[in-house]
Order: sequence, then structure tokens, then C-alpha cells
Amino acid sequence: MVIEIISIGDELLIGQTVNTNASWMGEQLMELGIAVRWITTVGDDFDGLKEALRNAISRVDVVLVTGGLGPTNDDVTKKVMADFFDSRLVPDDDVLEKVKTRFAKRGLPLTKANVEQALVPDKAELMDNDCGTAPGFIFTQGEKCIYVMPGVPQEMKSMMVRFVLPRLKGQQIIPVHKKVLCTTGIAESFLYEKLGAYPELDKLVRIAYLPNYFGVRIRLTAAGNTDDEAKEKLDSAEKIVRRNASEFIYADKDISLEAAIAERMVQDGKTLAVAESCTGGLIANLFTNIPGSSTFFERGVVAYSNQAKTELLGVPAGLIERHGAVSSQVACAMAEGIRRLAKTDYGLSTTGIAGPTGGTDEKPVGLVYVACADEGKTAFERHTFADQRRINKERFAQAAMNLLRKRSWGFI
Amino acid sequence: MVIEIISIGDELLIGQTVNTNASWMGEQLMELGIAVRWITTVGDDFDGLKEALRNAISRVDVVLVTGGLGPTNDDVTKKVMADFFDSRLVPDDDVLEKVKTRFAKRGLPLTKANVEQALVPDKAELMDNDCGTAPGFIFTQGEKCIYVMPGVPQEMKSMMVRFVLPRLKGQQIIPVHKKVLCTTGIAESFLYEKLGAYPELDKLVRIAYLPNYFGVRIRLTAAGNTDDEAKEKLDSAEKIVRRNASEFIYADKDISLEAAIAERMVQDGKTLAVAESCTGGLIANLFTNIPGSSTFFERGVVAYSNQAKTELLGVPAGLIERHGAVSSQVACAMAEGIRRLAKTDYGLSTTGIAGPTGGTDEKPVGLVYVACADEGKTAFERHTFADQRRINKERFAQAAMNLLRKRSWGFI
Repeated sequence: MVIEIISIGDELLIGQTVNTNASWMGEQLMELGIAVRWITTVGDDFDGLKEALRNAISRVDVVLVTGGLGPTNDDVTKKVMADFFDSRLVPDDDVLEKVKTRFAKRGLPLTKANVEQALVPDKAELMDNDCGTAPGFIFTQGEKCIYVMPGVPQEMKSMMVRFVLPRLKGQQIIPVHKKVLCTTGIAESFLYEKLGAYPELDKLVRIAYLPNYFGVRIRLTAAGNTDDEAKEKLDSAEKIVRRNASEFIYADKDISLEAAIAERMVQDGKTLAVAESCTGGLIANLFTNIPGSSTFFERGVVAYSNQAKTELLGVPAGLIERHGAVSSQVACAMAEGIRRLAKTDYGLSTTGIAGPTGGTDEKPVGLVYVACADEGKTAFERHTFADQRRINKERFAQAAMNLLRKRSWGFI
Repeated sequence: MVIEIISIGDELLIGQTVNTNASWMGEQLMELGIAVRWITTVGDDFDGLKEALRNAISRVDVVLVTGGLGPTNDDVTKKVMADFFDSRLVPDDDVLEKVKTRFAKRGLPLTKANVEQALVPDKAELMDNDCGTAPGFIFTQGEKCIYVMPGVPQEMKSMMVRFVLPRLKGQQIIPVHKKVLCTTGIAESFLYEKLGAYPELDKLVRIAYLPNYFGVRIRLTAAGNTDDEAKEKLDSAEKIVRRNASEFIYADKDISLEAAIAERMVQDGKTLAVAESCTGGLIANLFTNIPGSSTFFERGVVAYSNQAKTELLGVPAGLIERHGAVSSQVACAMAEGIRRLAKTDYGLSTTGIAGPTGGTDEKPVGLVYVACADEGKTAFERHTFADQRRINKERFAQAAMNLLRKRSWGFI
């Protein structure tokens, strides 16, 4: 079964409202293994909506329409539906009754607009609205089925859950299982190459790479004739991915790297202090965004100037002079310094050149040293990223946190 | 001129990603008085995308396509475009050069997928991507113009601002002038009340209040028969707004409070150090996001534990015992401490309860004390916000920075 969503409303076209309705519906349908093939957004526009309906009915089995059922006269959906399905608008007593009680309850007089809400297309099956006054409609045309719902998220969701999804669930056949594996520290193209070597993956699942500056999320979607088959396919696919990318995977649910690290820190009763230069407080900020972070995050220092590195972290001025502030030696001294002063299990540090200016041939913009000090040893890494300050800070922070993850999770 | 947006990506259809790209584009175009008539969302689906293109070109003047330009094989956009516009994919030396430098800089080898990114349709005009590797394309068919951009929001936005909007602006007819006045420290409803008293405003401009956790941006949009008329209307409207909200306005362009403060700090040759408890590094992070911040931002300390407050800021342990860590006395001692140790002109501090837990009847979640120490005096403020941790941190930081602004700009 293939579906099209038609979202109606000028506010969606001028960016006043983000179309979260469509994404919510898509997610619900995905859960049922039902594919949304199209989402069409059109304004409160009689001819536009008719065209959208015509296209949708020509190419999908089920059309889900939301919006434009309100009482104001920029709401054209009901008129278009009546016209399109060659249906008359007739008063419905139950709906009128409901509108009346609703208004009486709030001590409000009925307006003409409200009474008009009780007009319904005579060829439509009604869907009760338990959060508002406008009912939903179901039209059928041959094999095709068209569900029309209000655009108010709460009202649409209630109708989806009470009427639409149960019916579609009855009709749909493909069981689907999905999982997201979050990776970091590897570029999309490399991940793609690693996994591209396993053609059986494509037979087992639909695999999507979702990259951002923090890493690449791998989404596996398995469909089968039975629920078990789908699940088995997903499991076998996950095994292949894990076998080839284990050290890059930090979570099997869609969470941030810092959240995954924090979970483990709390579990293991470990503590952390951070000494940041080029990331300027970003790492401290990310960790302290997590509720309860005070149980493992002891302190942070943003040692932006060399003087601060010496005063706050005990980095020998001579070391900075010899190797420069941006060096593995200073990164390690910063990590060890903050760990010693804060008396924490882990000390994490960053020193680099976020840019856009301040780079040299030898030490270009985008260069960063990250270091992680613990009881066992002090590990460091050198990375070079691009030239945009904000993105560099994000990537520097991610690299530092990933080093901490690799140490504290025993990968290195 | 009528526009259609085509958004490409399975993640949009299954609700994994909300289509904020389309709403951002719609808002930008609305600002120019250009109407988006359709938004069509289709998956990474060869035939579907071709159909979407065919429909769009048949009914609008300009088509804006985003998504599916990445290196992995679930990205079909470029192939479809080449096919649709009967164009050959040929290697582009400049693009390849860019990809190579980008990877060389990061010390990474090129993968086949990356090299393929340098293949471009020979009938397309290229749009440079200044945040990524995939270039954008411009195709023309008769009077119709089709712009193809990546789906990564930042890359799309940069191409819109640098290439698409300027061209469309050249084509549109109604002269429009707009200005954003950024305010902070006043709620939308109060601002609305202040300005609501001036009905002439509505005659001069369309006024939009754009609130977020950082403040309220006032967007003034003036349309006129001539460019001059639009500009005059905008100027008179701005005068009225400024007369009534001067102390809340921190910028007449859409920049952050920290950016406005930083500009002035650099101008005046002043320096800043920050001591954060409940904001956990957010303020340091915000200031160090600004290029060149090292000229005025000397250091930051995230003194999460009481011990850290004493060790790093010289806050007397007795003071913390007597008044509690969340108190005006400790806030002032933190601000004075960091200023003294860092030898800066200003010392800024925060101490509060971000939540969601840790509040008491006397000191509830959402309570914060912010303090600003300088040569003249130490000023502090007490605020109480809501119970969401992330939002509280943002608001705490904003309140602290606004106190710094009021002191350093001479309002208090």
C-alpha cells in the first residue's frame, strides 16, 4: 500500500508553521511498515487542492489530507471535497448537537460559521473529532481511499490513532523492523565503503546514511513476510554492520555522544573535568546539558590565553614556549593538569585553531590536538578539519569526546 | 513569480527529519514578496523525482530543489537532473580540486564516492558550496528556472543567500525594505503593548514579533510603489519603535546578544572573564563562537562544585556555607574573583538551579543569580524562569550577558 499526504495551509507555504503533522504521520505509518511516497503541501487554494487530489489519487492507494476544515472562510477543504467527489453539503444533527453543547458549556453564542461546521458532504463517512468541532471525512473512489482531517495537530493525531491507523493496519501486509546505529569518528564515504563490501546487506535491509557534523547515523530498515523474518533480517544486518564498524558505534538509539558517555560515566561511578582552549566551553556546555551531570562533571576551565593555561592548569610556561600552545605536549599537560587539580578519574583537553584566522602553514586553521588523561595513561589525537569556526568547534569537541569514549570504554 | 519547492529524502517521508528547509525557504521568499505555491516532498526515488519535476515545471516559474546530492548511492538527485535535462555528467576540475584539498587538508584519502561528487551535469550552471563538497546546479528550460541545492540545511541556506535569493530578488517587482531590531530583557506581550499604542505603525510597515528564548526580534517590512517610498516608511516605523523600546534594543541587524556585546568590547578595547556555575560553560561557548573573541575573552571557569568555586575563584567557603552556593553574595564573589584573577575589565558570573531537579521551596528550579563586576561596582540580578534545564541554561546565560550589556553600555 502506498500513501500520499496532502498538507493544506498558507501558513505552511510562507514558513510560519513547520509541517510537523506530515512528519508525525510519516513516522506512525513507517512504524506500520506503510510507505509514504509523497507529501504535497498546498495553500488554502481551491484549484490547487483539486489538482493535488487529482495527482494523488492517480498515483497512490490512500490519500491522507489535513488542514483547512476550520470555521473561517479561508478554509476551503470541505468545499473542494464536496466538489471533487460530487457530493452535497448537508447539515448533520449529531455534529450540530456537539457544536451547540460545546459552545453552551463555554457560555458562548453560536456564530453562523460554527453552524456551517455542521454541514458535511453527503457521500462521506464521518470521523468524530474528540478535541474540536470539525469532523473528519472518509471518501472512497474505486479502490482508493481518501481520509480528510483537521490541521490542528491534536485533532489530527486523535483521528489518526482512533480511525485511520487501525484501518490501514488492517490492510497493510509488510511487517517492518528498524534500528538506528549512531557512529562517530568516521566520514560517511568511508563508512559507505566499509559496508559497501557486503552486498548481502542490501538484500537484508534498506540502509540509509544520515550524516551531520557529529557523525553518521546508520538507519537499517528490514521488511519481511512475517514479523519474525523482518526481525531476523534486521538482526543479521546489524551483526554485519557491528562487525565492520564496532569501534565507531556509540549507541543503538538516536542519542548524542555526550549522552552515551554520561550514561556510562554514571554507571561506572567515574568523574570528569575538562580543560578547553579552542572549544571555548562547548564540551563543558554539552555535558552540563545532561540532567544530573553534576554527579560526574566536576569542573571545566576555558583556558583561552596562555597565561590562563599556566595559572589554571599548571601548564609550564616553558612547555608552551617550546612547542607552542597548539601542540600534543600542551594538550597532554592540560588534560593531566585539570585531572590532577580536580582530582577526577578523567581529564579531557582541547587546543587548536578554530579559525577563521590565526592559522599558519605549519599549524593551519582546523588543526586540533585533543588529549585524555586517566590513571593508566594520557592519550592524544591530532585532527585537521575545515575552516569554519563554529563547525570546527563542534568537530573538535566531538573528537575530544570520542577520544574519552574510546579510553573509558576500553577501545584504546 | 510563482515558486515550487521540491524536498528530496526518504528521511522526510518517514518522519525522521522534519522539513524545516522548506519552511525556512518559504519564509525567506515571503520576505521578498514571492509566493511559494507548492511544496512537494519525494523520497530518494528516481521516477518519483522525475514526476515531481515534470509537475513543478508545468505549473510554476521557478523550482527550488533540495536534497539527495550526497556521495552515497541513496542520493539520486544528480542522476535524475542529468536525465531530465538530457545532460551528461562530466568531471569538473574545480570541484574535484576542492574535494581533494578538503580531504588532503584532513589527511584523508579520496574514495570513489568522493570523486563522483566532482561529476556535474554539462548543461548546468554551478553554485559553489562553501560549507561542503557537493556543488549546486542551475538549469533553465525556456522561461523556467530550476535551482538544485544540497539538503544539509547550512549548505542549502548558504546557496540560497549567496545565489538564489539575489537572483529572484532581481526578478520580483514590489519594492520591499525590511529591518530586524533585536531586543532582549522584555517579554513579547509587553513589547506588543508598548508598540500597540501606535496604530500608525501598522500603516507604515508589516510588523512581526519573533520571540525565542533569547529575546524578541521585531521584524519591520515596508512595501512601497517606489524603492524610496518603502525605505521612508521603514525609517519612520523604526523611529517609533526605537523611541519606545530603546533600552531593550541591542542590534538593528539579526545578530546574537553576545555578538553585539563583543563588537563593543573590541571597539572599546575591554576584556572579559566568565565564572559559570549553572550555565556550565554556555556563556564561554557563546562568546568563543565569535571570530576573534580571543582579543577580549581572556578565560572562563565552570565551577560546578563548591570546591571548584573556592579553588578556582577564591570564593570563601564560609560565604557559601552562610548564604548557599545559589545566592547573590556568591554570584558577586564569583564575578569579582574571576575578574581579579584574570585581571580583566569585566567579570561575569552565574549561579542557579537549572533543574529539572535540585530545587527547594525557598530556591526553586529556574532561580538564578547573575553578577557583573567591573572597576566601578558589582551589579547583580535575580531571575526566576521555568523548569526545563536546557531552556533555563539559555535564559540564565542571556540574563547574565544582558546585565553585562547594560553595565558596559552605560544603561545602569
